[in-house]
Amino acid sequence: MNPKAVVLLSGGLDSATALAVAIDEGFDAFALSFFYGQRHQVELDAASRVAKILGAKQHKVLTLDMRPIGGSALTGNLAVPKDRPHDQLSSGIPITYVPARNTVFLSCALAWAEVLESFDIFIGVNALDYSGYPDCRPEFVRSFEQTANLATKACVEGRGAMKIHAPLMHLTKSQIIRLGLGLGVDYSLTHSCYDPLPNGKACGHCDSCILRSKGFAEAGLADPAA
Amino acid sequence: MNPKAVVLLSGGLDSATALAVAIDEGFDAFALSFFYGQRHQVELDAASRVAKILGAKQHKVLTLDMRPIGGSALTGNLAVPKDRPHDQLSSGIPITYVPARNTVFLSCALAWAEVLESFDIFIGVNALDYSGYPDCRPEFVRSFEQTANLATKACVEGRGAMKIHAPLMHLTKSQIIRLGLGLGVDYSLTHSCYDPLPNGKACGHCDSCILRSKGFAEAGLADPAA
Repeated sequence: MNPKAVVLLSGGLDSATALAVAIDEGFDAFALSFFYGQRHQVELDAASRVAKILGAKQHKVLTLDMRPIGGSALTGNLAVPKDRPHDQLSSGIPITYVPARNTVFLSCALAWAEVLESFDIFIGVNALDYSGYPDCRPEFVRSFEQTANLATKACVEGRGAMKIHAPLMHLTKSQIIRLGLGLGVDYSLTHSCYDPLPNGKACGHCDSCILRSKGFAEAGLADPAA
Repeated sequence: MNPKAVVLLSGGLDSATALAVAIDEGFDAFALSFFYGQRHQVELDAASRVAKILGAKQHKVLTLDMRPIGGSALTGNLAVPKDRPHDQLSSGIPITYVPARNTVFLSCALAWAEVLESFDIFIGVNALDYSGYPDCRPEFVRSFEQTANLATKACVEGRGAMKIHAPLMHLTKSQIIRLGLGLGVDYSLTHSCYDPLPNGKACGHCDSCILRSKGFAEAGLADPAA
């Protein structure tokens, strides 16, 4: 029987790759997505397709509505910034940052891991392209792992140690794409855009679209979802 | 202007006392409750009354439905244990434990604190009466505080350090009751029962009812909600 891992899956390029890595490493993958009040459901549809195609054992969507606390362009009425130059994308913290999002998502993954008796959680965070997000940095991931080991029944009872895997942490976007392609990820199924058009297509102008497009260009490939 | 604090408020005896402590210490209190799939809404009604009477500046209820991941008598179909002897209440981890609940709740409190530009979170956890819950121990709270300081925009930008206050950590239930009475808490408004009767009254037989009743008895008082 394979060990179980909970994999945070947004439906974007990074988390799809993290899911493929988890499965490639021999885990039975339990994919976890959130309806957290995001502007669009397109990414949840993408998560569902990706989980199925890559062979996750289960895919659950938890409802955690962050809208009442506000504070982000992704859940509120603030405008998503468009056409920012590349060199501005990694300076400062963008208003698309959702407060404490990865802490919240990892906590929910921890809850499911505890129920599954799993000691492994995968998250597709990346310190290079998203250096503006504090909860994407290696020191944050390491600290959360320590907290997780003090928080859970199985760890306190000595049945195992929780490990937070962040296999994309030090890769560039083009390295992530090449890694995923090598593992059979079909990026045409993924969705990265913060502010999709009414037909569900990517806007091509938000930070996430710009980083994705740059990644495919640097890998010398066309984006199959473009 | 007073500093702001986010206070986790379940509507029970402990969190009502933690709210009173936060206000007594000079904070403007922003109370946060959850609909997490609990069996009853009685405790959310209690939270709302307590927040209002004690003078919280705001009270928000976030929806975070933990039922899809299961694993607890408080959110699933497992029976809530009744009439357990006192000496069993603190041995082992009860099935009323909700997986990773305090990690999840503190993460959401952190998100709101970030939006409010607050650096203080209060949680009414207690290591004595609830020693069976791993996420009620001081080492867990300290570790979460470290993680919070790495997770948030304001901390990374050097605007402050996040502090997790657990003012009830080392108090017995009767000490908590005396502390709260001294601060004007009306415990008739609070609700502690895990499995209330159809009329909303406490069952009197679950672990939480037994601990509450023991606390009032040891304080030499009658429970005004009984």
